[in-house]
Amino acid sequence: MNIRFYNARILSLENGTGIISGELWVLGDRISYIGKEKDNDIKWDRQIDVDKDLLMPGFKNAHTHSGMTFLRSMADDLPLDRWLNEQIFPREAKLSGEDIRFCTKLAILEYLTSGITSIFEMYLDPEIIDEACIESGMRCVQVGGMNNFSQSLKLQEEYYTKLNSGSSLTSYMLGYHAEYTCSKELLSGLSALSHKYSAPVFSHNSETASEVQGCIERYGLTPTQFADSLGLFDHGGGGYHCVYLSDEDVDIFRKKGLSIVLNPGSNTKLASGIADISRYLDAGINLAIGTDGPASNNCLDMFREMFLVTGLSKLHEKDASAVDATDVLIMATKGGAKAMGLSDCDCLSEGKKADIIRIGLHDPNMQPLNNIAKNIVYSGSKMNVKMTMIDGVIRYEDGNFDIGQDPKEIYSYVQDLADRLR
Amino acid sequence: MNIRFYNARILSLENGTGIISGELWVLGDRISYIGKEKDNDIKWDRQIDVDKDLLMPGFKNAHTHSGMTFLRSMADDLPLDRWLNEQIFPREAKLSGEDIRFCTKLAILEYLTSGITSIFEMYLDPEIIDEACIESGMRCVQVGGMNNFSQSLKLQEEYYTKLNSGSSLTSYMLGYHAEYTCSKELLSGLSALSHKYSAPVFSHNSETASEVQGCIERYGLTPTQFADSLGLFDHGGGGYHCVYLSDEDVDIFRKKGLSIVLNPGSNTKLASGIADISRYLDAGINLAIGTDGPASNNCLDMFREMFLVTGLSKLHEKDASAVDATDVLIMATKGGAKAMGLSDCDCLSEGKKADIIRIGLHDPNMQPLNNIAKNIVYSGSKMNVKMTMIDGVIRYEDGNFDIGQDPKEIYSYVQDLADRLR
Repeated sequence: MNIRFYNARILSLENGTGIISGELWVLGDRISYIGKEKDNDIKWDRQIDVDKDLLMPGFKNAHTHSGMTFLRSMADDLPLDRWLNEQIFPREAKLSGEDIRFCTKLAILEYLTSGITSIFEMYLDPEIIDEACIESGMRCVQVGGMNNFSQSLKLQEEYYTKLNSGSSLTSYMLGYHAEYTCSKELLSGLSALSHKYSAPVFSHNSETASEVQGCIERYGLTPTQFADSLGLFDHGGGGYHCVYLSDEDVDIFRKKGLSIVLNPGSNTKLASGIADISRYLDAGINLAIGTDGPASNNCLDMFREMFLVTGLSKLHEKDASAVDATDVLIMATKGGAKAMGLSDCDCLSEGKKADIIRIGLHDPNMQPLNNIAKNIVYSGSKMNVKMTMIDGVIRYEDGNFDIGQDPKEIYSYVQDLADRLR
Repeated sequence: MNIRFYNARILSLENGTGIISGELWVLGDRISYIGKEKDNDIKWDRQIDVDKDLLMPGFKNAHTHSGMTFLRSMADDLPLDRWLNEQIFPREAKLSGEDIRFCTKLAILEYLTSGITSIFEMYLDPEIIDEACIESGMRCVQVGGMNNFSQSLKLQEEYYTKLNSGSSLTSYMLGYHAEYTCSKELLSGLSALSHKYSAPVFSHNSETASEVQGCIERYGLTPTQFADSLGLFDHGGGGYHCVYLSDEDVDIFRKKGLSIVLNPGSNTKLASGIADISRYLDAGINLAIGTDGPASNNCLDMFREMFLVTGLSKLHEKDASAVDATDVLIMATKGGAKAMGLSDCDCLSEGKKADIIRIGLHDPNMQPLNNIAKNIVYSGSKMNVKMTMIDGVIRYEDGNFDIGQDPKEIYSYVQDLADRLR
C-alpha cells in the first residue's frame, strides 16, 4: 500500500523534539518522504488528511509477557510471594500453545490502542508467539526466558536460528529469565552461545532488593556483576527492571553499552521499588520503557509508564525537576528501538520502517498546545491514539482493529480460558 | 428526557461492588428504576442498548482548579518554588473573567472524557465558574479559596449566600486557600462564618513537609491542629492533599468526621510526597480523590489518580497488598460525594440523581472480565468512557460532546490565551 498523510504535524524524533508541518509518504513498508507539501505522481492507495494531528514514531514496549492477559485482575492486592506462587505459576503451567496464541493477540489489541508498534517479548512457547505476531502484524523481538525448569540451551539455540530466519517482522534474542532461576552452568552455557553468535543477552535484573541480596549470598556478586563475570555481556544486551543497581553495576552497563529497560508500573503495583533513573541518565546509559506483563501491571499502556518514569523519579529524588518529560519520550521510542536492535524503527525519516502513530491533538487533554511532547507524557492517554501503523500497514484506526481476526473471537477465547483456570 | 438503558451490567455501589444485569431508567434528572427487564408504559425519549457494558456512578473529582488549563505543559520539570513564583502566579494575575470561563470549560470537556460528573472546585472568580458549569451542565461544588491577597470574608459570605441559592447543579462551600497564605485573623473570621451558617470548611492542608514545618514554627501547631484550635472544623469539612498528617492530626479528622481528599498525581509531579493512606483508612476517615489543577498534574484523569492511590501506597508501604483497588473505586465515587455533600449522587439507586457513566467492557484493556472493579482501577483509561450523563443529561457520548458550545471554540480561545501569556 502507498499512503500519503498530509496536513500533519510531524514529530520525527530524528534530531530532538522539534515539530514540522507537512506531509509524510509511506511506500510499502517504508517512509519515502517527510517534508513540505509537494507535487508527486505516485499512485496512492489512500491519502489521509491528518487534520493537524501529530504523526510520531510508535512506542516500543521494551519488556512484556503478552501471554499473561488471561490473568488480568484475577489476583491483585496480594503479597508478592503469594501472588506468584499461589496465583500465577500454577495457572501458567496449564497453558496450551493455542491459549498463548489467543492471550498474545489480546495483548496485541491493547498495544495497538496504546500506540505500541513493537514489543520486546519474553514468554512461553516462542514459536506460537512468533506466529501470533506475524498473523496480527505486530513487530516483535522475542528474548529467551530460559531457566532451570524450561527452555534449555538446546531449545534456545534452535529458536535463535529458526526465529531469526523467518519474517522480517519478528526476531529472537538470547536471554534468560533471571539469575535466581538459573544455575551457573546454564548461564555459562548461554554465555558460550552468546559468544558463538556474537549475540546480546537480556534478562530480568535486580528487580527486587531480595533478588540482589540472594545473588550476593550465592556468589558474592550482584546479578549484574555475576552475569558480567560469566561473559554474558561481552556482546551487549541489558536488563529488565534494574531497580537496584549499585554504582559498580551502573559502570558495567556503561562500559558494555548495555540497555536498561524500566518497568515503573509493575514495580509500583508489586511494591518492588523506584529505580534511580537520574543516575542511569547521568551515566549515559541507553534507557527504554516496558509495561511488563498484564498480571503485574495490569494494563499495557505506555502513557501510564511514561508518566510514572518521570513522576516516580520526582518523588524518589524529592525534586520536581528530576527526569525531564522530553527525555522520557525519547526512552519510549528511540531508547526502546536501540535496546531491541530495531535501528530501522527508531524515528521517522526517509528510508526508515513505517511504524507510525497518529496522536489526536483535538482532544481536551491535549489542549492547549504549549508543548506537545510534554502533553504526550504528562496528559496523554490511549484515547488520543487515533491510528497505529506497523510496517506500513494500519492495524488500528479510530477504534477499529485490523489484525486478521475479529477481536470478539479473541475476547471470547480468553474469557473462557480465564473462567476455566480461575 | 426519559432514557431507558437496557442490556446493561450495573455497578450501583449501593452496597459493595456486586454487579447486576438488567436495566436502568432515568426520568428527568433522577434514576427511577434499576433491576431486571420489566414491562412499562413510559414514553421514552431514548432507549439505549448498553451491549453488556457497565453503568456506574460518575467519578467525583474532589479537588481541582479547572481554570488553570491554559498553563498545561507551559512550565514543567522545574523546582516547585520556581514553578509557582516564576511561572504560575504572574500569569494567573493576568486572567480575566472570560479567560476563566473558557479555561474552566476546557477542563469540563476533559472531565467528561474521564467519566467525572462532579467537581470540587477552588479557583478565582466563583461567579464566572458557577456560570460556566451551569452553561456546560457540570455539577460543581465550589469552595472558597480565600487568602490574604484575594477573596475577603465579606466576598466569601456573598458567594456563599448567592451561589447556594441558584441552580441545583452548583453550590458553594466555605474554605480558605491554606494556612500559610492566611492570617490568623482571617481564619478566625472564617470560623465565625462557619459557625454562623453551621457550614463545613475545606482547605489545602499539609501538602508539603515544609508547609507543616512553617505552621509549627508560627503557631506551635500543625495546620490541622491550628485550624481545629480556631474552631474551623466544628461543622465538618476536611482537607486537600493531606500528605503529611501526624497521628494527632488523623485523630482530629476522625473525631470531627472530616474528609481527606487525596491528590496523588499532583503530589507525584510536584515531588510533594506520598500520603500514608492505610493509616487514614484504618482510622475510618472518609477518603476522596482529586486531580488537582491541570498545571500541577497535568491531566484531569481519574483513572490515573485511582491507579496512583493504590500503587503509590504499595510502594510507600513496600507491600503489594496495601490499599485494595476496590476501596479506591469507593473513594473515587462515594467518598467524593460524601466530602462534597452530594448525598444524592453517591451511588446508583432509585431516587438518586442520574450522574451515570458507561464504561466500555469490549475494549482490550478491559478483557477478560475476571474482576470488573479491579479492571477499572488497574487497567481503566479514558478510552473506556463511552458516555457521561450528569443530572439526567448525556454530556458526552462516543467521543462527542454536548455542553452547549463547540469544543473547537473553546480550544481556540484557550490557545490564544496561552499564546498571549506565554
